[in-house]
Amino acid sequence: MKPVRLGMVGGGSGAFIGAVHRIAARMDGRYELVAGALSSNPERAAESAAELGIRSYADFNEMAVAEAARDDGIEAVSIVTPNNMHAGPAIAFLNAGIHVICDKPLAATPEQAAAMREAVKNNKARFFLTHNYSAMPMVRVARAMVADGAIGDVRLVQAEYLQGWLADDTSNKQADWRTDPKQAGAGAIGDIGTHAWQLAEFVTGQTPESLSADLSSMVPGRPVDDDARIALRYASGAKGGIWASQVAVGQENGLSLRLFGTKGALEWHLRHPEELIYTPKDDAPRILTRAQDRSQSSRTPPGHPEGYLEGFANLYSDVAAVIRGDETVATRIPDIQSGLSGMAFIAACLASSKQDGAWVKVQT
Amino acid sequence: MKPVRLGMVGGGSGAFIGAVHRIAARMDGRYELVAGALSSNPERAAESAAELGIRSYADFNEMAVAEAARDDGIEAVSIVTPNNMHAGPAIAFLNAGIHVICDKPLAATPEQAAAMREAVKNNKARFFLTHNYSAMPMVRVARAMVADGAIGDVRLVQAEYLQGWLADDTSNKQADWRTDPKQAGAGAIGDIGTHAWQLAEFVTGQTPESLSADLSSMVPGRPVDDDARIALRYASGAKGGIWASQVAVGQENGLSLRLFGTKGALEWHLRHPEELIYTPKDDAPRILTRAQDRSQSSRTPPGHPEGYLEGFANLYSDVAAVIRGDETVATRIPDIQSGLSGMAFIAACLASSKQDGAWVKVQT
Amino acid sequence: MKPVRLGMVGGGSGAFIGAVHRIAARMDGRYELVAGALSSNPERAAESAAELGIRSYADFNEMAVAEAARDDGIEAVSIVTPNNMHAGPAIAFLNAGIHVICDKPLAATPEQAAAMREAVKNNKARFFLTHNYSAMPMVRVARAMVADGAIGDVRLVQAEYLQGWLADDTSNKQADWRTDPKQAGAGAIGDIGTHAWQLAEFVTGQTPESLSADLSSMVPGRPVDDDARIALRYASGAKGGIWASQVAVGQENGLSLRLFGTKGALEWHLRHPEELIYTPKDDAPRILTRAQDRSQSSRTPPGHPEGYLEGFANLYSDVAAVIRGDETVATRIPDIQSGLSGMAFIAACLASSKQDGAWVKVQT
Amino acid sequence: MKPVRLGMVGGGSGAFIGAVHRIAARMDGRYELVAGALSSNPERAAESAAELGIRSYADFNEMAVAEAARDDGIEAVSIVTPNNMHAGPAIAFLNAGIHVICDKPLAATPEQAAAMREAVKNNKARFFLTHNYSAMPMVRVARAMVADGAIGDVRLVQAEYLQGWLADDTSNKQADWRTDPKQAGAGAIGDIGTHAWQLAEFVTGQTPESLSADLSSMVPGRPVDDDARIALRYASGAKGGIWASQVAVGQENGLSLRLFGTKGALEWHLRHPEELIYTPKDDAPRILTRAQDRSQSSRTPPGHPEGYLEGFANLYSDVAAVIRGDETVATRIPDIQSGLSGMAFIAACLASSKQDGAWVKVQT
Repeated sequence: MKPVRLGMVGGGSGAFIGAVHRIAARMDGRYELVAGALSSNPERAAESAAELGIRSYADFNEMAVAEAARDDGIEAVSIVTPNNMHAGPAIAFLNAGIHVICDKPLAATPEQAAAMREAVKNNKARFFLTHNYSAMPMVRVARAMVADGAIGDVRLVQAEYLQGWLADDTSNKQADWRTDPKQAGAGAIGDIGTHAWQLAEFVTGQTPESLSADLSSMVPGRPVDDDARIALRYASGAKGGIWASQVAVGQENGLSLRLFGTKGALEWHLRHPEELIYTPKDDAPRILTRAQDRSQSSRTPPGHPEGYLEGFANLYSDVAAVIRGDETVATRIPDIQSGLSGMAFIAACLASSKQDGAWVKVQT
Repeated sequence: MKPVRLGMVGGGSGAFIGAVHRIAARMDGRYELVAGALSSNPERAAESAAELGIRSYADFNEMAVAEAARDDGIEAVSIVTPNNMHAGPAIAFLNAGIHVICDKPLAATPEQAAAMREAVKNNKARFFLTHNYSAMPMVRVARAMVADGAIGDVRLVQAEYLQGWLADDTSNKQADWRTDPKQAGAGAIGDIGTHAWQLAEFVTGQTPESLSADLSSMVPGRPVDDDARIALRYASGAKGGIWASQVAVGQENGLSLRLFGTKGALEWHLRHPEELIYTPKDDAPRILTRAQDRSQSSRTPPGHPEGYLEGFANLYSDVAAVIRGDETVATRIPDIQSGLSGMAFIAACLASSKQDGAWVKVQT
Repeated sequence: MKPVRLGMVGGGSGAFIGAVHRIAARMDGRYELVAGALSSNPERAAESAAELGIRSYADFNEMAVAEAARDDGIEAVSIVTPNNMHAGPAIAFLNAGIHVICDKPLAATPEQAAAMREAVKNNKARFFLTHNYSAMPMVRVARAMVADGAIGDVRLVQAEYLQGWLADDTSNKQADWRTDPKQAGAGAIGDIGTHAWQLAEFVTGQTPESLSADLSSMVPGRPVDDDARIALRYASGAKGGIWASQVAVGQENGLSLRLFGTKGALEWHLRHPEELIYTPKDDAPRILTRAQDRSQSSRTPPGHPEGYLEGFANLYSDVAAVIRGDETVATRIPDIQSGLSGMAFIAACLASSKQDGAWVKVQT
Repeated sequence: MKPVRLGMVGGGSGAFIGAVHRIAARMDGRYELVAGALSSNPERAAESAAELGIRSYADFNEMAVAEAARDDGIEAVSIVTPNNMHAGPAIAFLNAGIHVICDKPLAATPEQAAAMREAVKNNKARFFLTHNYSAMPMVRVARAMVADGAIGDVRLVQAEYLQGWLADDTSNKQADWRTDPKQAGAGAIGDIGTHAWQLAEFVTGQTPESLSADLSSMVPGRPVDDDARIALRYASGAKGGIWASQVAVGQENGLSLRLFGTKGALEWHLRHPEELIYTPKDDAPRILTRAQDRSQSSRTPPGHPEGYLEGFANLYSDVAAVIRGDETVATRIPDIQSGLSGMAFIAACLASSKQDGAWVKVQT
């Protein structure tokens, strides 16, 4: 299958989520990044594009028009800007007939969201939102199990997303736009609460009918919420809760989902993402792994955690660095000596075993 | 930095580890796969190369000569064949001046290993062995901590690699060559024992001086070991053990390392690879995460498990499939409706909060 | 110190919590159970007392008067009846000058509670409430740490008590009175919610100022709440939540407490009661154990879980059964053969070690 | 059932294990401690007996004779002395017709063990060894499951008992006799290795046929082993290992057992003693709890950890202290105020719920 020609808006050097999207696009070899309007700062945009070896635009409108006009123009664009900068580019590219892959939450204001909805309705180009957690293997397993009735009717839903990194009045690139009402629209509820909301919605297949929220700004002077405790009611009679916090000291990305139904329960924690705890009613809990995944969402067999690939990638990138002349990482790459050591281990094992476990020297 | 031109030997369609190496090479965008001798079966080699859009060779010797002669020939080659097929290509490419990235264990026989050692000695081209686990972030942290004296002098070392997939007399592509003495050289000790051995060696910086091994073939008729219990003695006076098994029913990839020193202890399990348990003497255990990693081995902040990237990649690949006309996965991709639901959630939270937590409808 | 002469109201044969109180009273040898009004059914009261070898009363009022008049009368009484039967005996014994140890919650109605408060005020006899969880070692450690400022100012409090045993319309002795509004006063909030409430209050030292509750009866027709989701506000500005449920399928006694402050966090789960997770701000989580307990709340060294004592007690009780003629449990008690096997193990270890690890027969 | 009249040898004030045995004997009310030779130091023996209110003897021989002669003499005796002091009293009491409950390991020397075996053979009085771990509920469940074929034929056995408290050349009452070859007979293998050995034997029902041991004294100058790594071979063809260490820094009482059979696996850790991980072949692991216990080894329902009783006992003992005039612990005992707070919680929940979750004051 031919790779999809991809563009990017936002994601210039120093941006976190732009780099994540690029890795994701590269991983399966199904995309080719060819163009970008990588920063609202024209110089940084150009520099970042040069680093990536792609066409650079200073402006997303210009980019949408120009790319749509090229035979080899982009087929899809990733929008990885702050929340209030989603609507503009999304609409521009949709109108230009280019598919949009947009970071979440959708927008900073209801007005922006409504305009985006219209643009999706009025165009053939597709719109995708990167609620990445719902694409993790065990989350997909959970969703399939709920749909198959494994826990019966859902009665109780609890989703949490707890972080601690905004426990103080910290200032940095990541923190600043997230706590600026103009750029972010909302605080914890937008940045991470929407992840918990979408996770619960994705797995249960139900959207709450009403909610009661207690939003707080625990850090004095913070203009947006940094802690949110939300009660949920579903049309089905189910009840639920979302707890999103960015002042939960010590929590890195404490996303979790717990579901209790009439016939069983499911529990998932991002901290151990490859385990899904399933408890059938009146029976012992089971620890499900990707061995139970039928969604073809995995690149490795169960038990090889997904970080397995990153471990390999770390080696490959270190090797590339050495090949390009950087010896500083060479000492941590296993080499011929490491291989010979392994061979000596095998030989010693075989020799000792033949002598009924006698101690033998390892001949490295 | 210009990507490294990469070739591959082995890894044709259906091979597990070849696909893993390709993902790893793609992840950071530092390689371009351009040529391969992907199978000893010429037809499958050609088909697999066509799928990947790379130059195909029927024979690795031919490939080494031809690529070395091209201006745009490969700079490095990945060797992802069974153990007994490492030495031949490794020596050929090293002699041709092409860097080698070789899967572990080094070889199937001591003679092959010796020949490889000579080839490395006699050539400028570099040799790297993909002991991938030692490139995982928390393993690198552990190594640095031991080197820094965090646990004092190492006294006790316990490394385990437990799998259960060969508990029966199973026959399949993966199982067959691993249990064939000619192709594999040894059983569990070669396939996974060497991983445990290298992990212990990498983290402690010490190679055992002697060992005592009890190798077993628990499955009747199996010609190689499927369970190995090995005692280790170090020159320093430290003692250790390796337990490698492929008949440990229920274990997927139970790799772990436990170290006890005069001043502290370290414990790591592949099952939860982003946690390193560090216990200073006379103090409480700490759960270290990538927040403690200074080795630049991570692509995401701590708390985003490494599977985070795979989740994103799953979304991107599903989107590519939709763009190329496959609608079957479309229902599991968050779209505009998902975005509007998140916006309705935010709006309802803000409205409820303004009314001191009154229940408000979610306007999806 | 002379044991305290103890009486009991409620706790006849078949009662769960009465037996628990008697074990607790026996464990440290500081009580002697001498009298009881063990059931509202006079026959069962008499039979139960005979089994225990104590003075029996048909009526708690009679018991209070009679015991107060005796030189060797009870000094304290345990009240282990359903919630609506706490006030009567508590007041009677307090008025008789006898200390009261009362099961929780205090009472079934506010009127009963007020009367009890008056009785405590007007008498010298003391009143104690058995919120047992707050006497567990790591809970006491948590309380001391909060008081010492280990987590700074408390900002977020989350207490949960999740059970699944009332997920259906089950009928049995334990379930029936708990779901009867007259006997219990309330459902999950009274039976287990008060435990979560008291746990949070005990550890933080703060009582919430106001709350917002969403109570549900998930099982159709149930006259009391079986699920409660409660938001809390503290005078200090802290926020909190309590989730109590008896329809959380698969949960046995899922009591937990999580606290986040300005300087750190604490997390405790009844499931692993001897671990307290303490995360100082900007540092790694620590797993505290009873090694950190300075409250003298333990009978065994850290690492011997508290079930250690029950294991010993199981052996002792099996031995008593054998001594009294019941041989059915004899096979599971380690005996001389078990001891000789251990001695053979030691001897074989020493012999093998002397021969540098040679295999030696175990001489059992 | 009438309580068994019990005596004790050893266990004077300051002794750890004697106190544990007394608690165990008290817990179910099936014993009455009436006599003791509590110390080899006659003064301490007398003082300790006075504290406990029991008959005191300076010498166990005298005690055996005297008690056997009394109509109300002891029926059983607990021997809780160092290893080399087990044989003498055990034989004396057995010969006197008094049942013996003896601490493990059986003895300090093979000669002592043989003499004990003869005494058991030649007398009607019974002999019991307190391998307490094998009486814990989930260990009994594991044993029953193995016997029932839940994991098929056992292939692999791994038992570990890791402690760190002897990592240094510490000197104290507990450490001194355990590292004295005369009193203890052996080091880690006797003190804790025998526990691991017995645990494996109890659960599998098999005793190894031969073993290979590597014993170490990691602390310079220590006259007994403090680390032992032992390989096991069973007549059935199964293989196994025991690792016992007292220099495993940071480990409190790291006792564990892992079994792999042809049809499944079992894993148990003393750290979380109420969980037994059972993995049927080709299926997901299950976390079994006391809900699966059919051995009547529990005093509380599943989910109430066994420390539940100790929590209650802590409260009861604090109450006894207050009743006897010690007010220092009074502040940590829940009292009427705590009860009223719980009632206010219930009332506020009901009020808020009636007003659809409106915030209501808590009326404490």
